[in-house]
Amino acid sequence: MPSAGIIIIGNEVLSGKVTDVNSPYLCRELRSLGVDVERILTIPDVIDVIAAEVRAMSAAYDFVFTSGGIGPTHDDLTMDGVAKAFGRELELSTSIAGRIERAQGREPNESQLKMAMIPAGASLVDAGDLWFPVVIVDNVYVFPGVPELLRKKFDSIRDRFRGEPFLLKNVYVKRRESEIAASLNDLLREFPALLLGSYPKIGQESFHVLLTLESRDAAYLGRALDSLLSRLTADAVFKVE
Amino acid sequence: MPSAGIIIIGNEVLSGKVTDVNSPYLCRELRSLGVDVERILTIPDVIDVIAAEVRAMSAAYDFVFTSGGIGPTHDDLTMDGVAKAFGRELELSTSIAGRIERAQGREPNESQLKMAMIPAGASLVDAGDLWFPVVIVDNVYVFPGVPELLRKKFDSIRDRFRGEPFLLKNVYVKRRESEIAASLNDLLREFPALLLGSYPKIGQESFHVLLTLESRDAAYLGRALDSLLSRLTADAVFKVE
Repeated sequence: MPSAGIIIIGNEVLSGKVTDVNSPYLCRELRSLGVDVERILTIPDVIDVIAAEVRAMSAAYDFVFTSGGIGPTHDDLTMDGVAKAFGRELELSTSIAGRIERAQGREPNESQLKMAMIPAGASLVDAGDLWFPVVIVDNVYVFPGVPELLRKKFDSIRDRFRGEPFLLKNVYVKRRESEIAASLNDLLREFPALLLGSYPKIGQESFHVLLTLESRDAAYLGRALDSLLSRLTADAVFKVE
Repeated sequence: MPSAGIIIIGNEVLSGKVTDVNSPYLCRELRSLGVDVERILTIPDVIDVIAAEVRAMSAAYDFVFTSGGIGPTHDDLTMDGVAKAFGRELELSTSIAGRIERAQGREPNESQLKMAMIPAGASLVDAGDLWFPVVIVDNVYVFPGVPELLRKKFDSIRDRFRGEPFLLKNVYVKRRESEIAASLNDLLREFPALLLGSYPKIGQESFHVLLTLESRDAAYLGRALDSLLSRLTADAVFKVE
């Protein structure tokens, strides 16, 4: 199955000024497509840090998504970092410069030309009605930090990332984790390939623990669910969905 | 100034089932205390991955905070990973086992005893009215993933993490980033120690860009703010706060 890593680039996230909503979005979308996100990393706007992490993730995963740092200001250093990760130079994309000029009806100024500097050999893919394309370097997809734009861009190319989706069953349990932990261990001995999550919920009246059962095999998942329910007493289960 | 790294441990975050609210909370709190968060990492519930990342962050930063993976079930592997990071064994904390027994009025079961297994040599610090203490191994603070519990625990020991706080000015600008980028570059040449952030906002009527100016030196920050405002025309500024 395809794997992915996500790199959030921005001092504003590390300093608590902005809450990252892009990695939760990407995790949900990629999961629904059947891609396994294995790592999310938030780092500052520092070229060498960006370069090192992009290089490492590009080697480790099928797809890498970056978010942030592609605007026209001094703290937008993602393109520099991605170029350095692959030992490439930044070069002016006449295609992007032309798009800027057409979008605003006059030549780009110096700051806008900075946004047209991309790593040599990058691919550009049009993203719906946005004038700025998705920039792709090797297996690294360079996305903006602005959530509305990131979503439009991801959505326009989502079919590139299709794996085999997981199937999910949620079981809401009216017991404490420590009361059911042994049953869960037994279940996993019987179904070692099951992905089983156990999440205590505080402040819920109707249940204490949410169990998530996942598999890409519907029959296996069904048997695992039956086995779990047989291990719990009927009054311990609030609902299954 | 003290530095920090945050490690979020949990498949549920990577698979998009749960949105991490703990790292935004820790970032805001640590920033207000004057601690620089330099990295946030989300990784799966895998002992060797946890061990490698805890070891690396412990060496790189003054403080490391982990969140998640300390419950009684099969997917709670943080203590194993932290122990392995420092080459230590897990051992039964009779102190924690005793707290569990007192809290529920009977001896802990096998699953609860798992929660009392902590790395050899760990320190325990009481956290307000919670029966489970904060577990500290070297410079690594092991927090739960449940947000309500993490906040109580952090709050009970926050005075350990006091640095010199940053002072912040927000300037809301009615121009596009590409129109002010050159002025920002000039400002940074005059005030190289200024932390200057530039964040475009989509869907705002009254401004297009939020500029954040930060310094630990109030006089320096004041001079930088004056310099910025002198570079922008009066009608370009929506408000300063």
